Amino acid sequence: MADVSLASRRRAVVLLSGGLDSATVLAIAKQEQYEVSAISFRYGQRHQIELACAARIAARAGVTRHVTIDIDLSQFGGSALTAPLAVPKHTSVDEIGQEIPITYVPARNTVFLSLALAYAESIGARDLFVGVNALDYSGYPDCRPEFIQCFEQLANLGTKAGVSGDRFSIHAPLIELTKAQIIAWGIQLGVDYADTSSCYDPTATGRACGHCDACLLRLRGFAQNGFTDPVSYAD
Amino acid sequence: MADVSLASRRRAVVLLSGGLDSATVLAIAKQEQYEVSAISFRYGQRHQIELACAARIAARAGVTRHVTIDIDLSQFGGSALTAPLAVPKHTSVDEIGQEIPITYVPARNTVFLSLALAYAESIGARDLFVGVNALDYSGYPDCRPEFIQCFEQLANLGTKAGVSGDRFSIHAPLIELTKAQIIAWGIQLGVDYADTSSCYDPTATGRACGHCDACLLRLRGFAQNGFTDPVSYAD
Repeated sequence: MADVSLASRRRAVVLLSGGLDSATVLAIAKQEQYEVSAISFRYGQRHQIELACAARIAARAGVTRHVTIDIDLSQFGGSALTAPLAVPKHTSVDEIGQEIPITYVPARNTVFLSLALAYAESIGARDLFVGVNALDYSGYPDCRPEFIQCFEQLANLGTKAGVSGDRFSIHAPLIELTKAQIIAWGIQLGVDYADTSSCYDPTATGRACGHCDACLLRLRGFAQNGFTDPVSYAD
Repeated sequence: MADVSLASRRRAVVLLSGGLDSATVLAIAKQEQYEVSAISFRYGQRHQIELACAARIAARAGVTRHVTIDIDLSQFGGSALTAPLAVPKHTSVDEIGQEIPITYVPARNTVFLSLALAYAESIGARDLFVGVNALDYSGYPDCRPEFIQCFEQLANLGTKAGVSGDRFSIHAPLIELTKAQIIAWGIQLGVDYADTSSCYDPTATGRACGHCDACLLRLRGFAQNGFTDPVSYAD
């Protein structure tokens, strides 16, 4: 890696959930020589394991700042990720449907990107990195390229920096990759996936269930690369 | 007003700041026969008077629900509305400039509309009402028609309802009105402006300063209608 002084680097904000995708995106932003600040959200998710993972990932990557924002989306209800609804389980990845599942959280990425935008504008960052992907995903509408493009347009219409010509860019480098391709890229960049949590329904001790959409997609991604997923599974 | 049963009404979410504009918009949504839920934000603003006003306005209008969301934008810094920076004061409304002032809060309306969208999707509302206006305003970029249009597009790309064809509409009925026109409309609808707070820098007892952008624009709006503003001013 070239020796670029911190002062000359462009600042970026990375949305860091603590999952596999956002850990990879953080490594990409670092590789691209950005001075990185990370933002995570305590949004009423049933398990906080992913926030502990986010803190470890951020520390290991040596980010400049890591903020965790409290915004309780569970008060609105309507999602298996924030309310006591059953997370769908399957025996095989082939059973994952195309319809939007009940793990969908209303407008989640719109809210998260908006807060990341507010943070970015405040600290002088104009590049936002987000780990959405539209392939090997759970069918969420706010993970698609047209959504990300529209948010970039909104960011440049609705901020002082944007309308002054100091434009925001929303980077979604994983958006058209398979989970296997994401994992291959991350391993090449030195991401330690043992520090990540993807499961929608982990045990109290933090072991992944192995049967939700997120576990099944992740397990297949490692298998397709000939690797074993380093996180612990309940069975 | 026609007698329309609650069950047959379309649901709407009104963004209610406690200011003059949002109080008027709430009255408009009620007049248009929506079943209204209101959403307010405790976002780290220096004064909480406007939240007390929002509660009174909501109660008086008979909304179905009123939620106040905690989201601390002051932790990002950079605004005179959330940090101990001096709010600009003037002796006349003619001194208000065209540049974006330091009362600008980074990405505020993007954040507020995103949370209102999450709330709306959760409760089955597809109409959002917001009191932005692009005339007689403080030069904020997130109060312009092109911003609102882009947010509507984003809402329909990034939500389960939107992509299912159950489309969201963002209503900004004041966007091209002068403050005088807004006040005239509100008085016709029976809005009690004594319940509203617009001042950026009120006294500890809740009296308006009379010299910030918001006070001067408001005072001129009442004067142009031949009315006296019913709120208390410090001098």
